[in-house]
Amino acid sequence: PDLLTFSAGAGGEEGAAFADTLFSLFILFFAAKVGEEVFRRINQPGVIGELLGGFIVGPFALGLADVTLTAEVFAELGVVILLFTVGLEVRIDDLLAVGPMALAVGFIGFVLPIIAGTAIGFIIGADMLAAVLVGLALAATSIGITSRVLAEMGVLDRAFSRVILGAAIVDDILALLAIGLLSGFAEGELGVDTLLTLVAGLLFVGIGLALAPLGRRVPRAVFVWPKFADTPTVPVFIIMFAGALLAQFVGLAAIIGAFVVGLIIAETPVREEVEHGFRSLLGIFAPFFFAVTGANIDMSALLEPRLLLIVLVLAVMGVLTKLVGGIIGSWRLGKWNSIVVGLGMSPRGEVGIVVAALGLSLALIERETYAVLLAAVILTTLVAPVMLQWAIPRAPRDERHQDEAGAAA
Amino acid sequence: PDLLTFSAGAGGEEGAAFADTLFSLFILFFAAKVGEEVFRRINQPGVIGELLGGFIVGPFALGLADVTLTAEVFAELGVVILLFTVGLEVRIDDLLAVGPMALAVGFIGFVLPIIAGTAIGFIIGADMLAAVLVGLALAATSIGITSRVLAEMGVLDRAFSRVILGAAIVDDILALLAIGLLSGFAEGELGVDTLLTLVAGLLFVGIGLALAPLGRRVPRAVFVWPKFADTPTVPVFIIMFAGALLAQFVGLAAIIGAFVVGLIIAETPVREEVEHGFRSLLGIFAPFFFAVTGANIDMSALLEPRLLLIVLVLAVMGVLTKLVGGIIGSWRLGKWNSIVVGLGMSPRGEVGIVVAALGLSLALIERETYAVLLAAVILTTLVAPVMLQWAIPRAPRDERHQDEAGAAA
Repeated sequence: PDLLTFSAGAGGEEGAAFADTLFSLFILFFAAKVGEEVFRRINQPGVIGELLGGFIVGPFALGLADVTLTAEVFAELGVVILLFTVGLEVRIDDLLAVGPMALAVGFIGFVLPIIAGTAIGFIIGADMLAAVLVGLALAATSIGITSRVLAEMGVLDRAFSRVILGAAIVDDILALLAIGLLSGFAEGELGVDTLLTLVAGLLFVGIGLALAPLGRRVPRAVFVWPKFADTPTVPVFIIMFAGALLAQFVGLAAIIGAFVVGLIIAETPVREEVEHGFRSLLGIFAPFFFAVTGANIDMSALLEPRLLLIVLVLAVMGVLTKLVGGIIGSWRLGKWNSIVVGLGMSPRGEVGIVVAALGLSLALIERETYAVLLAAVILTTLVAPVMLQWAIPRAPRDERHQDEAGAAA
Repeated sequence: PDLLTFSAGAGGEEGAAFADTLFSLFILFFAAKVGEEVFRRINQPGVIGELLGGFIVGPFALGLADVTLTAEVFAELGVVILLFTVGLEVRIDDLLAVGPMALAVGFIGFVLPIIAGTAIGFIIGADMLAAVLVGLALAATSIGITSRVLAEMGVLDRAFSRVILGAAIVDDILALLAIGLLSGFAEGELGVDTLLTLVAGLLFVGIGLALAPLGRRVPRAVFVWPKFADTPTVPVFIIMFAGALLAQFVGLAAIIGAFVVGLIIAETPVREEVEHGFRSLLGIFAPFFFAVTGANIDMSALLEPRLLLIVLVLAVMGVLTKLVGGIIGSWRLGKWNSIVVGLGMSPRGEVGIVVAALGLSLALIERETYAVLLAAVILTTLVAPVMLQWAIPRAPRDERHQDEAGAAA
């Protein structure tokens, strides 16, 4: 009767894989929620609990849950929906107002880690290309964790949040360029492709931001025109999904696409209805992102003292360089607000892992260096929520500074 | 920069699989919605449009979308959530009131297709075991499609709906027994295992139904006790998921577990809140069930006239036997109401496919017979919504008959 358990069209072996996949999904979700519960009860960021919950049931600890491709898809949809709902909270005018500041934060915070990482790479004896790769792996911010913390603390309306989100877009475009250059350079075919990708990425973001204000002119009726739509939820889900895929197609992160769609929908009259309808989608999908991220944590590099030292140096430099980038780029927001910006840019994630994996597959770095980079990336992610929770209450909600941020446009 | 597109921890090849999987999911969802839109605009059941949409983009037609394991998981969660929300609409007392009637409909509607199918099997030249297998493949109802039609037409509160749902539970327990017997018999190890499975299945349903009335005593505070829960949605999602997995574990269909959990939650004070919170989950997940079912439709058996004839005979007998089962079992509801019950029990699905696959893997039947069985199963599924939409408006909402259904307990 195990055979009864699967959906139309599946065969016997696939049936077992199917049942295992469902079970793993359940365990990941459940562990994330238990972890969040424990951490919130001790007044720590819930997101750390979700990460640790995923880690504990994941393959590098208890091994109760596999990180299947399906779990990765749930995770991706989770962070896509998360960034979409964050986009819903941001008004395009407010975002554009902090544009120059976001540009500075994104740019400085991207260049500094490359310089620091490359230097560390040289010190630990890597050659030129490998050293640059170490730097690149530390360059790009992963905005998912920070978004969650900002949403959890109810501060998405603050100027520092907008600067962080704007800088994350800048950061992602730079990552697009950097990865294009790196792979082009490594494969000896640097050229038009890289440029085209960059242009496509810029066009996507540019057109998206330019379209956003037009959202005000779209009446609600457009969203509920389909007979299948009683509410705008399903049509907007389709648009969000399409935006994420399109961003991915041009080489950006899917979450940037979802965020831009969120910005556009935020200007339409259905904003609140969509926010409401997406609440349960967020509640069901987002935990998978954090649980899967946690389940993928392989800290084996930390067991050897020499490697542990390198990991710690890289992670500390990773946090410090983003912090400096944030402080320099958004100093007009005042000391603590700019510190929050810097800390918010600290978490690294998929891009760092992609760069490290690329280096490994091109034989630029060895498995040991790969493990070290992964561990450093993960540490920047784990410390950020704790530090944000500590710094945000210290950042004054100072209207003068926020006006300055606005005036900076 | 394609490398940018995947989530934490994925490698290069897996990255491509990941992007394809996401794309296929989008295409399946989009096709389902376009299909539904077209069908609703021509006043046909939306669910047929979703099935056809999935078929058109699926591997047996345009081939734009793959039916990945991930898509199957989305489909399964879709039908699980669907049956859970159907359970929310049913009061346990009303369901128990039609218990004897549901028992009769389920039992007669299970036995008749076995007899008819076995007879047809003999006629087309199958040996004993293979002929019984043909009958079994036509025996078990798949309630997903009917549930959707009943919900779409807003008739879940009618007596015939409760009889159908109750009969579906009876049907699933019989399927559990029949598949246990068949595989035990074929493998020559018929014994305690089959009995234990049956007992476990009966216990699950029995305990579930017995627990349901206790739901009235559970205060809302229990559901929002976790810090992570502002609303009961996430805790209830966990309970539903656990119920589905538990049902699957004892050998029942996951949807039976979800339905039973729905019945229990329906008795609690959070019923309406949960209904509300699950609306967008239903909207996002359920279309995958229908699109995937459609995408798995392989009608190649229909191209050969001799096989087409057998398929048609099997499908017609399949519908007729369930119709007779419905009419006999629920004749007290009156002519048209009992016809609706019979038609509602007509769609076959995963169980029929499982039985056919089991027969194929045990070499009881050949690939040709397998294809014929699949096509017949699919036809019973495709015709049901159309016939239900035709019959339901003819079934009088007769309070006397509904009272009789109640009095039958």
